[in-house]
Amino acid sequence: MNKNRLEAFSDGVFAIAITLLILNVKVPDKQNINNGQLNHILISAAPKLLSFGFSFLVIGVFWVAHHRIFSFVKVVNTPLLWLNILYLMFIALVPFPASILADNFFLTSTILLYTGTLFTISMLNFSILEYIIKNETLKHEALTKEVYRSVIKTAIIGPVCYVLAAVTCFISVYISLFFMTCALIFYIFFSGNNIMSKILIDVAKEDVG
Amino acid sequence: MNKNRLEAFSDGVFAIAITLLILNVKVPDKQNINNGQLNHILISAAPKLLSFGFSFLVIGVFWVAHHRIFSFVKVVNTPLLWLNILYLMFIALVPFPASILADNFFLTSTILLYTGTLFTISMLNFSILEYIIKNETLKHEALTKEVYRSVIKTAIIGPVCYVLAAVTCFISVYISLFFMTCALIFYIFFSGNNIMSKILIDVAKEDVG
Amino acid sequence: MNKNRLEAFSDGVFAIAITLLILNVKVPDKQNINNGQLNHILISAAPKLLSFGFSFLVIGVFWVAHHRIFSFVKVVNTPLLWLNILYLMFIALVPFPASILADNFFLTSTILLYTGTLFTISMLNFSILEYIIKNETLKHEALTKEVYRSVIKTAIIGPVCYVLAAVTCFISVYISLFFMTCALIFYIFFSGNNIMSKILIDVAKEDVG
Amino acid sequence: MNKNRLEAFSDGVFAIAITLLILNVKVPDKQNINNGQLNHILISAAPKLLSFGFSFLVIGVFWVAHHRIFSFVKVVNTPLLWLNILYLMFIALVPFPASILADNFFLTSTILLYTGTLFTISMLNFSILEYIIKNETLKHEALTKEVYRSVIKTAIIGPVCYVLAAVTCFISVYISLFFMTCALIFYIFFSGNNIMSKILIDVAKEDVG
Repeated sequence: MNKNRLEAFSDGVFAIAITLLILNVKVPDKQNINNGQLNHILISAAPKLLSFGFSFLVIGVFWVAHHRIFSFVKVVNTPLLWLNILYLMFIALVPFPASILADNFFLTSTILLYTGTLFTISMLNFSILEYIIKNETLKHEALTKEVYRSVIKTAIIGPVCYVLAAVTCFISVYISLFFMTCALIFYIFFSGNNIMSKILIDVAKEDVG
Repeated sequence: MNKNRLEAFSDGVFAIAITLLILNVKVPDKQNINNGQLNHILISAAPKLLSFGFSFLVIGVFWVAHHRIFSFVKVVNTPLLWLNILYLMFIALVPFPASILADNFFLTSTILLYTGTLFTISMLNFSILEYIIKNETLKHEALTKEVYRSVIKTAIIGPVCYVLAAVTCFISVYISLFFMTCALIFYIFFSGNNIMSKILIDVAKEDVG
Repeated sequence: MNKNRLEAFSDGVFAIAITLLILNVKVPDKQNINNGQLNHILISAAPKLLSFGFSFLVIGVFWVAHHRIFSFVKVVNTPLLWLNILYLMFIALVPFPASILADNFFLTSTILLYTGTLFTISMLNFSILEYIIKNETLKHEALTKEVYRSVIKTAIIGPVCYVLAAVTCFISVYISLFFMTCALIFYIFFSGNNIMSKILIDVAKEDVG
Repeated sequence: MNKNRLEAFSDGVFAIAITLLILNVKVPDKQNINNGQLNHILISAAPKLLSFGFSFLVIGVFWVAHHRIFSFVKVVNTPLLWLNILYLMFIALVPFPASILADNFFLTSTILLYTGTLFTISMLNFSILEYIIKNETLKHEALTKEVYRSVIKTAIIGPVCYVLAAVTCFISVYISLFFMTCALIFYIFFSGNNIMSKILIDVAKEDVG
């Protein structure tokens, strides 16, 4: 299996799933209304917009992670191909828990469904990484033991936060949302400073000149 | 016709069709409800999620098959182009029988519609393969008679299972679902071990280094 | 403007528009029904499926034409870029008249809306061709006067059929549908045999070996 | 981060967001009606079609701008990656204000929501440009101070028009729509003549021959 076509297909699924999220931000029949009614409708759409923004960034985080992992892959075999399709299945699923979150931010079941989906995706992330590290024929030489440990350290933060979010939702949904936001902030602001991303920039620079 | 642009367009249609499947997993109006009501809604969404997962893997199987077939194509002519567009038309159609399946898992008509669609796609698969093998100017030299026989052996399993599923749905829908699952499991777990995929990995390795 | 990125973006819009057509094939609430009711629903969905198939092939024709035209372009400038975006706007519009056609096959207004859209797209096709032929800096040397005349001869069939379909819909909608089908059949089965496609295959062969 | 994969992903989001706009052009239940009723439905769909066309061109303008900016990028680092994802989030958001605009063209809240979205996107545009110009390691040598000033001059027109449109909507919505149209016309017809686009065509020509 050609790695480029796998990446192109994966990027397609990511791009569609991330953009379909906006279809959850629907407002009820809006014709022939006045400013006051429209304002009311827009304010009530705020949780939907929040869920859209949050889920967009979440899929963004997974897309960045996917890109990083596959930059360590030299060639794709059938098991890796199917692990990736399973991974994409849960990426494509995200708009569903996101639509539930948009309507019911503060219910335990919502949080469990949402964090459960994210936990599954990050576990599949792990499986893909594990599979690559164990198959010498597939992996790029840049993926040394040292880099792998650094990647794992980064990859563990997400599932831990999602488990904490799932457990604490029985105490308070606010604590859950706090943990989910922590994972997001970590991946966006802090994950870029580790050894892996430095290697990736070096490789990219080599490619350019 | 440039083969790369054909593949990119096909990948686009595959990626969109596979991701649109999630739009079938809609739940009724969900605002201002409690945990119990949400749990009830989520449980009743289970068949929709099952149909989503199944159809996702089915399109995944066809995507992998499409990729493999076109890795044996050197150049695309007009008839092959239109055979491919016809093929993509039925791929794009899949969300429709999948939405029927999501709502009515156990009706004969559902099974006939669903297996009929999959049978048509796998027959078009055959036609494309046949067309390539018969046109020396189009096909890659890697597609020898021996490889072709191996590909055909793999490609025949699907249509046979779909016909069996269609016939047995008049006895019991469970037997039909069993045959449909058989085809899926075969393609995901066993089709990767044949001669063709070994050749493809060799070619991919050559490309890398 | 990089030609490859323009083609990739255009292919994206084509692939999405063509796949979104399936969203028009929606059936009413389908849960907890029996085989007879489902059969009835499926039969009443036939015109929707017909509109889906027809519109899928129509967008397919335009995609093939787009690909052929841009294979004669060496470099893209700003006016050509915006002509192309205008062209894509009408491609993205197709699901709308297609959804009207799906529900009301035999109304004059439906036919006028549908053929009007197709006529506009084919006229934009012409404008793009005209613009390329008149700008020496943009066009590929393979686009000679002779090739251009052949391309124009092919490109004129569509708009002529659409005008005939629009005019005859006041007599009988069946005659309109006949002319629309004529255009489709011509492009799928006969347009591939002209001089242009032969040149394109030659170029593609050169690329390969 | 590989620049090509970032561009491919961005193009995907642009292509999907721009094509999803057509889903806003929905008409009420259309089955079993006559020509008069259909005409009435189509006429009442005119504002939706206008909003579709306008929003399509607006996203088109941002796509062209995105392409131009990233042609000055040599290599992508993590902050630029996340600025781009934030930018894409607002591009994916456009179908929402566009759907509100489709139904309520002449309400102050509609105009504020729509211009607010466009203003945010153009401000993110600025941030990306600023970030690139300040990071010597990322930027292409073609992005000189002179080119940067020319790009900034072009990029300032949009936000100014959107602010004017937002302010004037309290006087008259027609003035707002006039300013929004001004920005569109400027970018489509006049922005292509500046120094930057000349450089880009030179670069593209070099690529070809």
